[in-house]
Amino acid sequence: MTPCPPETEATDAAWWAQLDALAQHAEGLSDPNPRVAARLRTRDGRCFDGHTQAAGDAHAEIMALRAAQAAGADTRGATVWVTLEPCSHHGRTPPCCDALIAAGVERVVIAAIDPNPRVAGAGVQRLRAAGIDVQVLPTDHPAALATRERNIGFWQRMRHGRPWVRMKIAASLDGITALPNGVSQWITEEAARADGHAWRRRAGALLTGIGTVRRDDPRLDVRLVPSARQPLRVVLDSALDIDPTARILQPPGAALLYTALGAHPSAAQRTKRDALQAMGVTIVDRPGPPKTPGGPPKVDLAAVLADLAARDVNELHIEAGAELNASWWRAGGVDELLLYLAPRLLGAGAGLTTLGPLTRLEDGWPLAFVSVHSVGPDIRVLARVPGRTPALVEPSAVL
Amino acid sequence: MTPCPPETEATDAAWWAQLDALAQHAEGLSDPNPRVAARLRTRDGRCFDGHTQAAGDAHAEIMALRAAQAAGADTRGATVWVTLEPCSHHGRTPPCCDALIAAGVERVVIAAIDPNPRVAGAGVQRLRAAGIDVQVLPTDHPAALATRERNIGFWQRMRHGRPWVRMKIAASLDGITALPNGVSQWITEEAARADGHAWRRRAGALLTGIGTVRRDDPRLDVRLVPSARQPLRVVLDSALDIDPTARILQPPGAALLYTALGAHPSAAQRTKRDALQAMGVTIVDRPGPPKTPGGPPKVDLAAVLADLAARDVNELHIEAGAELNASWWRAGGVDELLLYLAPRLLGAGAGLTTLGPLTRLEDGWPLAFVSVHSVGPDIRVLARVPGRTPALVEPSAVL
Repeated sequence: MTPCPPETEATDAAWWAQLDALAQHAEGLSDPNPRVAARLRTRDGRCFDGHTQAAGDAHAEIMALRAAQAAGADTRGATVWVTLEPCSHHGRTPPCCDALIAAGVERVVIAAIDPNPRVAGAGVQRLRAAGIDVQVLPTDHPAALATRERNIGFWQRMRHGRPWVRMKIAASLDGITALPNGVSQWITEEAARADGHAWRRRAGALLTGIGTVRRDDPRLDVRLVPSARQPLRVVLDSALDIDPTARILQPPGAALLYTALGAHPSAAQRTKRDALQAMGVTIVDRPGPPKTPGGPPKVDLAAVLADLAARDVNELHIEAGAELNASWWRAGGVDELLLYLAPRLLGAGAGLTTLGPLTRLEDGWPLAFVSVHSVGPDIRVLARVPGRTPALVEPSAVL
Repeated sequence: MTPCPPETEATDAAWWAQLDALAQHAEGLSDPNPRVAARLRTRDGRCFDGHTQAAGDAHAEIMALRAAQAAGADTRGATVWVTLEPCSHHGRTPPCCDALIAAGVERVVIAAIDPNPRVAGAGVQRLRAAGIDVQVLPTDHPAALATRERNIGFWQRMRHGRPWVRMKIAASLDGITALPNGVSQWITEEAARADGHAWRRRAGALLTGIGTVRRDDPRLDVRLVPSARQPLRVVLDSALDIDPTARILQPPGAALLYTALGAHPSAAQRTKRDALQAMGVTIVDRPGPPKTPGGPPKVDLAAVLADLAARDVNELHIEAGAELNASWWRAGGVDELLLYLAPRLLGAGAGLTTLGPLTRLEDGWPLAFVSVHSVGPDIRVLARVPGRTPALVEPSAVL
């Protein structure tokens, strides 16, 4: 049970910020389901909270109802605040709308309409049809924006059929990501690396390239912060050059390789593919055009995004080298740059990408700053590609 | 006259922040004198403010006393708050201590002791000898720190005999300062450029290299913000290659060239030097070792700093190309980096410096972040070289 604020406070920003903080607990837990929080207040003024559990387990509203029932509270006539429209369809679990109706709640306040165009508004309609008083916040309300932010990958996948693509880079203040001899560990300090793992945790998949795997042999897992699950680890490996003992292929968690072998892999490639699959590694062939005319085929990045969306990946987190980073930017695949800058000049070495050379400044790859924070002695810059943030659904458009 | 807060508020942070904001009005005006503010409160509760005027004109305390006298206020028994210890020696103006004593003030509260080791504490002693109650804030008081920050170049020159050296750079988020074809105007937007001019305004001298002069022909003046004076414009031009029609040599304001001609300039160099001097340009020869063995001599950067300090330059503001920037870092000449980052990737081109190549991360040039601010769509990062900030004088050490 949560201490209940007076009714007059129950729609303000601080109240909803509490719910958003509660929804955050679903990060690293509920994927691919959205991170949602619900609060139920009984007629006699007791509050019960819940957030989305692991996929296949209860949604936020159910958790709040269960908490109330476990305390012997009477849910009839209750008010429920929920950060995302309750579901009305049978997915992995029965619809939350039915549970709210059965519990006899009187009023439901919803921060944001479900971004899935096929179901948006259906939850509201079902609750209203049962006589429940439903209120939906306007799309410029801080709680609506916070819900989208908390679920930006779910939004992107539901609205545009692709993951939200976040590229993480650590660099010195002069934009160096590795010294000329390849040394890059560690440019940022412990606090920034732990913060980076918190961003990994919220991703559905972590992606790197075969170059980074061969050079650094990263584990690419979530270990510096606690997490109930490990994101899918993905390697782009056009010619299947990976060493089967690479750390990224080892449990815990699942690994997925994208190749560009095409119709006629070599005997050695077929043998390695079979061995890797026998280890439990998933291999998906998505050949695209070569990087240079006459060169070997490369993995098709747009096809990778489509395939990852089909695998229910909401947020794709890329940590790769400058060359693969550049390929993602050229392909228009990046939505957001998560950049850690260390307070140090390194002078020469690899940059953030191998983009360019340009002849005009206006041909640069545009971004807009979202936030800058201190993380230990380093800073974290979040910047987005303009026009990529998926829109909130206007209640008036679906109700 | 300023509305007076009650006595109980007169020592808190907001009160001193008002005085620091008043001292800011002396930027672009009082150099090389420090930026100081004073507030006098009469026994009957009226307040009068003042800040340092142009060099040779009145100091802050005198301005506050004049304001009181102009209003017919009785200054006997007054309290005076002043951000820097009042002067006790005859400089360009008579000592402020004498004026305070003559005005019959009863109490003086001082934020920071004069950083000049030869005079530190003398003002306090003179006031006390006249029976005035003098209080000096501790060195960790926000007002003491703000006074040093406002006068960091004065502090550096008084304590260490050199200017505070601030390097300003504008770059894309991936650390590119110019495209491979040299195009660099403009990487940042109007707001950042105006902000950069506000930092130019507080400098005693603006410095660039002959490479930038030949490539961009900058004016290197203060024009995007109002200023009562123009800083000295300085060019490092080892071989006297400058075109006498270069915009940086034209009025308003003074121009100074540092050369490395040595004992035997060529006839052409002598002719050009004479012609430039006839135009009013100051030329100072400070030859140092060549950049590469057997190459031509280069300007000695440490000698430049010493000469500029002798010319009463408190803050030296460098806006140069990547190569000269690197020379300043290698020479240990930089105290602070003022970096504007534009939300854009440019991929390839000139970096912040041509430092490196390094083989170990720990050999990088260390900084510590001081602040990050939004300036229009860009961000401004201020970072300092650790250990460079000049110390405040402990009152107990001189009183």
